[in-house]
Amino acid sequence: MIEIDGERLLKDLRALAEFGKAGTGVDRLALSAPDLAARRWLTARFAEVGLAAGMDRVGNVFGRDVDASRTVLIGSHTDSVPMGGWLDGALGVIYGLEIARTARARGYAGASGIDLISFQDEEGTYLPCLGSRSFCGDVADSEIAAARAKNGDALSEALAAVALELPPFRLDPARHRVYVEAHIEQGPRLESSAIRIGVVTGLVGIRRYRISFRGQADHAGTTPMATRKDAGATLISLAHRINTNMAALGSADTVWNIGQIVLRPGTPNVVPSEGEILLEIRDPQTEVLERIESEVLRWVTDIANSGPVAVAVQPTTRIPPTLMTPELGDAITAAARNQGEKVLAMPSGAGHDAMVLGRFIPSAMMFIPSIGGRSHDVTENTSDDDIVAGCRVLAAAIAQMLETLPQ
Amino acid sequence: MIEIDGERLLKDLRALAEFGKAGTGVDRLALSAPDLAARRWLTARFAEVGLAAGMDRVGNVFGRDVDASRTVLIGSHTDSVPMGGWLDGALGVIYGLEIARTARARGYAGASGIDLISFQDEEGTYLPCLGSRSFCGDVADSEIAAARAKNGDALSEALAAVALELPPFRLDPARHRVYVEAHIEQGPRLESSAIRIGVVTGLVGIRRYRISFRGQADHAGTTPMATRKDAGATLISLAHRINTNMAALGSADTVWNIGQIVLRPGTPNVVPSEGEILLEIRDPQTEVLERIESEVLRWVTDIANSGPVAVAVQPTTRIPPTLMTPELGDAITAAARNQGEKVLAMPSGAGHDAMVLGRFIPSAMMFIPSIGGRSHDVTENTSDDDIVAGCRVLAAAIAQMLETLPQ
Repeated sequence: MIEIDGERLLKDLRALAEFGKAGTGVDRLALSAPDLAARRWLTARFAEVGLAAGMDRVGNVFGRDVDASRTVLIGSHTDSVPMGGWLDGALGVIYGLEIARTARARGYAGASGIDLISFQDEEGTYLPCLGSRSFCGDVADSEIAAARAKNGDALSEALAAVALELPPFRLDPARHRVYVEAHIEQGPRLESSAIRIGVVTGLVGIRRYRISFRGQADHAGTTPMATRKDAGATLISLAHRINTNMAALGSADTVWNIGQIVLRPGTPNVVPSEGEILLEIRDPQTEVLERIESEVLRWVTDIANSGPVAVAVQPTTRIPPTLMTPELGDAITAAARNQGEKVLAMPSGAGHDAMVLGRFIPSAMMFIPSIGGRSHDVTENTSDDDIVAGCRVLAAAIAQMLETLPQ
Repeated sequence: MIEIDGERLLKDLRALAEFGKAGTGVDRLALSAPDLAARRWLTARFAEVGLAAGMDRVGNVFGRDVDASRTVLIGSHTDSVPMGGWLDGALGVIYGLEIARTARARGYAGASGIDLISFQDEEGTYLPCLGSRSFCGDVADSEIAAARAKNGDALSEALAAVALELPPFRLDPARHRVYVEAHIEQGPRLESSAIRIGVVTGLVGIRRYRISFRGQADHAGTTPMATRKDAGATLISLAHRINTNMAALGSADTVWNIGQIVLRPGTPNVVPSEGEILLEIRDPQTEVLERIESEVLRWVTDIANSGPVAVAVQPTTRIPPTLMTPELGDAITAAARNQGEKVLAMPSGAGHDAMVLGRFIPSAMMFIPSIGGRSHDVTENTSDDDIVAGCRVLAAAIAQMLETLPQ
């Protein structure tokens, strides 16, 4: 059993939240001054625990259990979105710190141990999951060379400016037998079910599409309705079809979003000549995503064939679903029930570093509730009680994993 | 009978099109150098005809029949939209020039005569129908002081820069007994009906609305569909209801346009917190506009009451319909039929100076076909035959009007 110290856990979380503090949240973009200061602070904490700690060339902070030859890797990220919450990412990293600290203090030094990591730029200021993809050897130098922030700043220049020198830490599957990441839910399901522990079955696949409409600009007063080539009307018709038919088409876990609509030229007295929709679809099952995609393409063909407006679909993002390892999830469930907690098995609708790690080694994710489901905002929060309870559950699950790590 | 000279008419139209020539069209924004050069050229043409001609402080060019005490006022405008067509406005002005020239040459000098006018800024570079509104005493100094072009340039500064000095010409209802404006249709109805003469029954009223939606931004992966406050989905639902129900609700002449849609924050992975639609509705009858407005407001209330997204409607433009004078239209119809032309009675879906004049004196508008219905573009055109035939019809109608002008 690993007996964590709840007060110390909360103190460390609050100390980390001072870096880039912004009201009740943090503004700690990857490779910004507060991000690097936080990572230096974290490196010192990892070292205090007795780990061999350092920050590599992309900003991953790694703590290596020098006594162990096979480890549970516990991690998440410490960068944030602009004006983000204090727990998104930070929670999983500080859980790892507290669990490793307690475990080593109780004499867990041995063949099976705990490595810790805080990945860089999970939030994609420059390149989403840069740190975990670099750790897994899953990012090409050319991709790093091309990556830019929304404001145009190049990742390569940001990395050169901070002049980190350690060669990249790399995943070693012979050593890192499993990856475990705790995270706030960033949604309302746990809170509304009054359940404190979510065991993630898998991370949803994400498909994004740019759907473009091309008609003809015409005077909106003199052009009869019947002769218009109205890109806007066709766009609205397709968008309505998507919104009214998607629920029946998908699974219970399917979510979708029309997050952007553009009409051109965009004035009240000109029939729109062009339109654009950005559509996003998420589901934990590839076959569901495939079924939805083929049906949406059929609707597009239907609408393009039945009117004078040309419609084109361009897939822009295709992130496959990542299943978590059931045995690891079972260990978390058992630990939770042992402590009198109910458990909700659920997909993760958001992306996480576990999405990358899960493609290389057995991985698990545990969620704790987000108050009001809020996230990516300074109002993001979780009660102290839930934070401590989550760490107790995870510590017990890790203890169990350490005892049964495959040789 | 006024026997116009078709070759001379076309030559004058082409001469005018040299000012601000842009490919096959013109770029002759109100108060620009080419607009003023065109107006000086036009002043000289009016003077050649024997009219007392000048350009007033807002740039209206007026030609006064010094022999007459009561007149038919013939006019339109010579400014254009950016990269506009060569006939929009110019046609009606040069028709007037040719008809007055022919009439005076044939000895029409007498108590009943013809005055000519080219109004300034009908297209609204600074202030739509500035010239006709100034002529009718229908624009406040404060409105002129506040008017700005889209690029921020002030109308007052543009007027000061060109330093025109003549006090504004004014409508004199005792003198100007009727107003007659010929114009290209700017739509496809005449062409597709193979009819060369359109007699305008009235200019449509225009109502514009800004419909705003306020929901809540949420993570599009972690927020269940059922708990979202999706401003975009509500917007799409209302837009679809408008597009599918408006035809049954309006008259045969009703046209509408959703010309602009905005979603905020406008990214694929965030549920839209805000949305905005710009809706425009046109119809020649006030009661139809009223009926549509009350029904759209009912739909908005319905949608706002049945979901978590707040919806607000702000009327932004309310231009009432303007009926043309049936007796004047009848004179044009009779003249056309006399010349073997078919006539289409039709509303004007676009605004024109006759919309302003028609509120003060009996007014008529005549349309000739636009090739492909194109307008507000350099591709705008009409065949030479149709241009000449239209002027013949209008000349005959004006002759009839001159003989029957009310004492």
